[in-house]
Amino acid sequence: MSKVRVHISSSLDGYVAGPNQTQEEPLGEGGERLHDWLVALKEWRELSGMDGGEENVSSAVVAEEYANVGAEIMGRGKFGPATRGPWGDDPWRGWWGDRPPFHKPVFVLTHHEREPLTLSDTTFTFVTDGIESALEQARDAAGDKDVFIGGGADVINQYLAAGLVDELELHVAPILLGGGARLFDNVGPNLKLELLRTIEAPGVAHLKYRVVT
Amino acid sequence: MSKVRVHISSSLDGYVAGPNQTQEEPLGEGGERLHDWLVALKEWRELSGMDGGEENVSSAVVAEEYANVGAEIMGRGKFGPATRGPWGDDPWRGWWGDRPPFHKPVFVLTHHEREPLTLSDTTFTFVTDGIESALEQARDAAGDKDVFIGGGADVINQYLAAGLVDELELHVAPILLGGGARLFDNVGPNLKLELLRTIEAPGVAHLKYRVVT
Repeated sequence: MSKVRVHISSSLDGYVAGPNQTQEEPLGEGGERLHDWLVALKEWRELSGMDGGEENVSSAVVAEEYANVGAEIMGRGKFGPATRGPWGDDPWRGWWGDRPPFHKPVFVLTHHEREPLTLSDTTFTFVTDGIESALEQARDAAGDKDVFIGGGADVINQYLAAGLVDELELHVAPILLGGGARLFDNVGPNLKLELLRTIEAPGVAHLKYRVVT
Repeated sequence: MSKVRVHISSSLDGYVAGPNQTQEEPLGEGGERLHDWLVALKEWRELSGMDGGEENVSSAVVAEEYANVGAEIMGRGKFGPATRGPWGDDPWRGWWGDRPPFHKPVFVLTHHEREPLTLSDTTFTFVTDGIESALEQARDAAGDKDVFIGGGADVINQYLAAGLVDELELHVAPILLGGGARLFDNVGPNLKLELLRTIEAPGVAHLKYRVVT
């Protein structure tokens, strides 16, 4: 059975983006530091079409995270632009240029209808009728593979609160952001979790949980 | 040089006590679950004057946490009672009975003056002139040993924000509390941390940090 999985970098104070997200700082003030551990890695650079990078204990964690994913769901904030609202006549095509690093179908939750957008081997489908519809479409697209909930915090929190997530991995960066987009807001105390593993790596602690149903 | 150390159990959503702390539920709704991993241990039971308990990977973590501590600082909330306010004619003597589990000098931050209270081998000294004064008194009492900041969240956050903590260990329980006393509130983004280690144990992930000055 395919899984619904969340893997996301978080600050130690629980934020997955800093305060004041803008077009220039889509991850908010200080938010880029959440991914310092990741962008140093060969695995991440390969997926983004770049050479070089290092291999360390996090490499296997990232390889496992990326493996067997058949579709991704993301919020409008992750797709952008920071201003949100209607798409307009010359609609935004994402933060990633002509070769997005997803290489799979992506479903974007939005309040504003739009035709699908294909860039290289990634097709973005815009979903306006809610998280359950997006999950159904993503499951169909993923087939036997898993569905990845890519964030931001709002979208992850909605899926967690609805009991629709099977696995949750936090890449805890050793930083505080002091504000921003907070994981677990309004998820409430009833979600049952089981710790699957912790992995210590340079500049990050990986904590993986199973959601107990 | 002796250290100022914080070791505290936290929920995955960053709370060290649940919502609605009362005299009956001093750790708030669901807050007792934060310590399920701890109260099962032989080390904790010994310190509390009880027999039995198990030994597992957490045992060494707890032994290290308890070792070389010469004094503890705690907030009025941890000492109690839940109602706070002036001490009155028949003042509260703590949650722990005649044999408190501290076995060392304890400094209680409070707005209300009170004479020291000795119970068995623990003396509680009540400090009304702020966190720096409490730390100075605790350092004097501890000698070459470390000072333990015992919580709650408010007190820990004040010491973190003031840059007075050397080491911080979170015992992350695999639970959400959905509200309550939140670690890192108002500590802000400027605290620099270095991950020292992660340890995976039954029902808890231990994350230990050094504060970089």
